[in-house]
Amino acid sequence: MSAAAGEQGVALTLDGVGALARRVLRAAGLAEDHAEAVAATMVAGERDGCASHGIYRLLVAANTIAKGRVVRDAVPVLAEPARALAKVDGGGGFAQLAFERGKPALIAKARAFGIAALALNNVVHFAALWPEVEALAGEGLVALAFTPSHAWVAPAGGTRPVFGTNPIAFGWPRPAPQPPFVFDFATSMVARGEIELHRRAGKPVPADWGIDAEGRPTTDPVAILDGAMRTFGGHKGSALATMVELIAGPLIGDLTSAESIAADGGAGASPLGGELIVAIDPAGFLGDAVADHRARAEAMFDAIEAQGARLPSSRRYAARARSLAEGVRIPDKLYADILALEANLTA
Amino acid sequence: MSAAAGEQGVALTLDGVGALARRVLRAAGLAEDHAEAVAATMVAGERDGCASHGIYRLLVAANTIAKGRVVRDAVPVLAEPARALAKVDGGGGFAQLAFERGKPALIAKARAFGIAALALNNVVHFAALWPEVEALAGEGLVALAFTPSHAWVAPAGGTRPVFGTNPIAFGWPRPAPQPPFVFDFATSMVARGEIELHRRAGKPVPADWGIDAEGRPTTDPVAILDGAMRTFGGHKGSALATMVELIAGPLIGDLTSAESIAADGGAGASPLGGELIVAIDPAGFLGDAVADHRARAEAMFDAIEAQGARLPSSRRYAARARSLAEGVRIPDKLYADILALEANLTA
Repeated sequence: MSAAAGEQGVALTLDGVGALARRVLRAAGLAEDHAEAVAATMVAGERDGCASHGIYRLLVAANTIAKGRVVRDAVPVLAEPARALAKVDGGGGFAQLAFERGKPALIAKARAFGIAALALNNVVHFAALWPEVEALAGEGLVALAFTPSHAWVAPAGGTRPVFGTNPIAFGWPRPAPQPPFVFDFATSMVARGEIELHRRAGKPVPADWGIDAEGRPTTDPVAILDGAMRTFGGHKGSALATMVELIAGPLIGDLTSAESIAADGGAGASPLGGELIVAIDPAGFLGDAVADHRARAEAMFDAIEAQGARLPSSRRYAARARSLAEGVRIPDKLYADILALEANLTA
Repeated sequence: MSAAAGEQGVALTLDGVGALARRVLRAAGLAEDHAEAVAATMVAGERDGCASHGIYRLLVAANTIAKGRVVRDAVPVLAEPARALAKVDGGGGFAQLAFERGKPALIAKARAFGIAALALNNVVHFAALWPEVEALAGEGLVALAFTPSHAWVAPAGGTRPVFGTNPIAFGWPRPAPQPPFVFDFATSMVARGEIELHRRAGKPVPADWGIDAEGRPTTDPVAILDGAMRTFGGHKGSALATMVELIAGPLIGDLTSAESIAADGGAGASPLGGELIVAIDPAGFLGDAVADHRARAEAMFDAIEAQGARLPSSRRYAARARSLAEGVRIPDKLYADILALEANLTA
């Protein structure tokens, strides 16, 4: 979605992106605190060159709102079901505000007990998980996050959808000025959006991305969207996808991906369900030796980069540096679509 | 390693396997409590048809003992560095006894706080992680386990070893009579033993298993053993391998795989280092609704198996049922090698 190099697209500062996102989200009827929280993740996506999680998602969020599949003014409610556990009932609203409301309790509990977990329940998800683990790593914590989605992905050896794209995200704090080590990937072979992009372009997809409704291998993106995607890494990715279903579904009393898509009833809205976030305080195990051991982690990162391999978040951070200095460019068509959406909403 | 069907090999009861393992481990100089704990995991491996983690490992353990790379009578010491954290200093002994000493504290803390973690430090690892997560799931807890090993695996996009085979194991309690849902897999493309087996057989390996010492793709197992293995699942598997290094290495004050193989100094002993085990009590989030939500997990397992896909542990559990009824058969050559080792040790 991002503009090509050169002078293509509409130039915006990151503040400009945020202002646009808030304006559209408010016009769509989202309460002020939700609009703030949702816009912040879209700015982060745009800033880091993750166009598919940038302001393109205004169209996605507006669709879910228009279909009545998200509570626009939900008030997240924090509870502490056990000493090292927190949970936030998102009341059917977008996940971002629920995370913001739960984050301080998660951080406090991780520091108090050494490890803690936060469940977000009854939230609508359309964003990446890396902003959350990065925020926790920015507080000096090690963080893991998991969420199911809609059942679009078949188990290894199977033919029909059971799992969502079920991302796993991880954050590790690094000494300044290094930003945290962060990864966030779908346990499906690719993001669903990749298959959508091939469909729009009328292009076949690689043979290992999915199967048709009869369970046969296919390179036709339309057939996969009607059939099932595959997990990455064969039976290992399938095992991880199962784990995500379990620990961010039944373990926290929330929906599996199959239950989420059944609840959607064909509306095509974003997934409804839960998210599990685990945070560990390095000082819990290490006391005042945190810096010494963190330096050994840095030596490992150096060994990876010295051989020309990239750390998972390096491309995002490079894009971030550019965006902070120069702003971003929004593709003309996307910008026009967003303005048309806004006009529609305020008409 | 397991005997072919029919009457090949030496028939043993599981008690017989355990007695043999304890006898050899004692003969090798292992203290009684260590011999018990180590033998129990070998019996579990043999019982579940995991021959590479069965009594074949007597040869591996004896080698590490003979090379002076494990403390034969180490006394594991339990500490509680934070309220929801426990750690056991294994004193350079095998990991099994350290886990046994830490397990009650981990279980108690998970139940008291909702989530807890146990670090094993300064332990020698040669066994699978599934016996540990299965034991915790047997207590009604959700469990995750991670450990680095020796640096044998290159990062995605790289050419030189940084990671160990870095397994990830997960256990989920299921209602009786179902045994827990358990997986345990290396984040390398295959276990190192698979490449060893191809080397012994003089057979090439698939092209995606590893690279030679110059970083070039190769199907020669010898070249890979001198070069580097690959992670499974490309950059996603590589990200997971990095996470395992971090959370079961520097986070708990223990060695990375690169540090472990450096400490080995070419001796070829089993990896020395740490392990992280996380346990979550479903009752923490769910209170008295555990059974209801566990039933929803069962519905997902049913949806997987109804389409002909297997749950990760199904083959192990099927082998277990057979072994418990009929005992096991040990290949003649392996049995002879073990008796020869024993004779050597007691000579």
